[in-house]
Amino acid sequence: MAENGRHFGDELTILKGRLLVMGQLVRERVHTAMRALVNRNLDQIREVIRGDDEVNAMHLEIDDRSFKLLALYQPMAVDLRTIVSVVKINSDLERVGDLAVNIAEASERYTAHPAVKPLIDLPRMGEIAERMLAQALRSFMDRSIAPAEEVLAEDDLLDALKTQIFRELLTYMLGDPGKIEPSIELILISRHLERVGDHATNIAEDVIFMAEGRDVRHRPPDHIALRDHVGE
Amino acid sequence: MAENGRHFGDELTILKGRLLVMGQLVRERVHTAMRALVNRNLDQIREVIRGDDEVNAMHLEIDDRSFKLLALYQPMAVDLRTIVSVVKINSDLERVGDLAVNIAEASERYTAHPAVKPLIDLPRMGEIAERMLAQALRSFMDRSIAPAEEVLAEDDLLDALKTQIFRELLTYMLGDPGKIEPSIELILISRHLERVGDHATNIAEDVIFMAEGRDVRHRPPDHIALRDHVGE
Repeated sequence: MAENGRHFGDELTILKGRLLVMGQLVRERVHTAMRALVNRNLDQIREVIRGDDEVNAMHLEIDDRSFKLLALYQPMAVDLRTIVSVVKINSDLERVGDLAVNIAEASERYTAHPAVKPLIDLPRMGEIAERMLAQALRSFMDRSIAPAEEVLAEDDLLDALKTQIFRELLTYMLGDPGKIEPSIELILISRHLERVGDHATNIAEDVIFMAEGRDVRHRPPDHIALRDHVGE
Repeated sequence: MAENGRHFGDELTILKGRLLVMGQLVRERVHTAMRALVNRNLDQIREVIRGDDEVNAMHLEIDDRSFKLLALYQPMAVDLRTIVSVVKINSDLERVGDLAVNIAEASERYTAHPAVKPLIDLPRMGEIAERMLAQALRSFMDRSIAPAEEVLAEDDLLDALKTQIFRELLTYMLGDPGKIEPSIELILISRHLERVGDHATNIAEDVIFMAEGRDVRHRPPDHIALRDHVGE
């Protein structure tokens, strides 16, 4: 709301800044959840589970700001695309926050068992997912397409690691029934991380749309088409 | 685009109609995936996997229509809220379509093994998730709050079934290592169905916001607050 008589440009800058803060917040949550899992640190795990309120409050705040900007200024072209993108990215980020909680909840159950194995590939998945998220957000702030396109390329890496983790854990489970239950938690965590990557991918696609009016969703990278959105 | 000189009201009706078709499409996909799993029908399973292109095309089309309506007519108040809600609901429905594919892919891997057990609770989860989705869409079309609020209440049912399924399958896995791999697929399917329910919940919340400008997200049902969105 333009309560201080601020101009549209200022409001849009604030909105984008808030989205970036939201992005950093959920990225940290994923990071903390993964570190807490590796260190079997139950205090940290519970901190992530409790911390979701802050994410939810920011989600509502950013939605509200976006909606008010649309209603009050009726922006056109690239500004309209930016705000619609903020609404979508905001909802992706909120779900990443939920996934951090899901990871923490699975970690809490996991730490009730002895460790199945030293965790190597799973933290690696976490690093990749985090990096994808950081790249997607940077490309949003800079309106630069290059990091967004890197994000899309990195999704295959996550998928390969997920399959590898599943195969390895299956071997542990077949060898020792006592490892079944904790292994399933690790498999679930690998799926949560895969979904963090999916959200980063969604964000990257939205950035490309915002910056270029080009829609790369649901298209293989070598068939990217220019679409005639309402342009500048 | 108002290519035929149609009025805003007509365009909005078309937009909502398309969203409803999209909703029916993804609901059928979930239904078909679950029936194919129960019947171990590999042809049907693969049909669901292939059918995602249609969902993706509709997703883009509805996004495009919404964006053009915002850009061309710069609607206010309840109309603006409706279009912003369509954009959000559309993205939820697209993900339900993805989940139907995830269910079908897990089912494909599952049918490579002998059946673990007769499936009873899992199809029940499917029915509940589908019903939640249907109710959420009906409440969107009718702008009626009652079915949307039912959706929010039914989410606990899904959660309880998910936990029950996990416990039961764990027993099978502990008793017979040969059942570990197929059981994990069933556990993953139960998580996918849980997420279908989550998306139905998101949609119901958006409908309540659209109809009343009341935001019930991230709030316990007994603490629903009226928020001062830009009103009519």
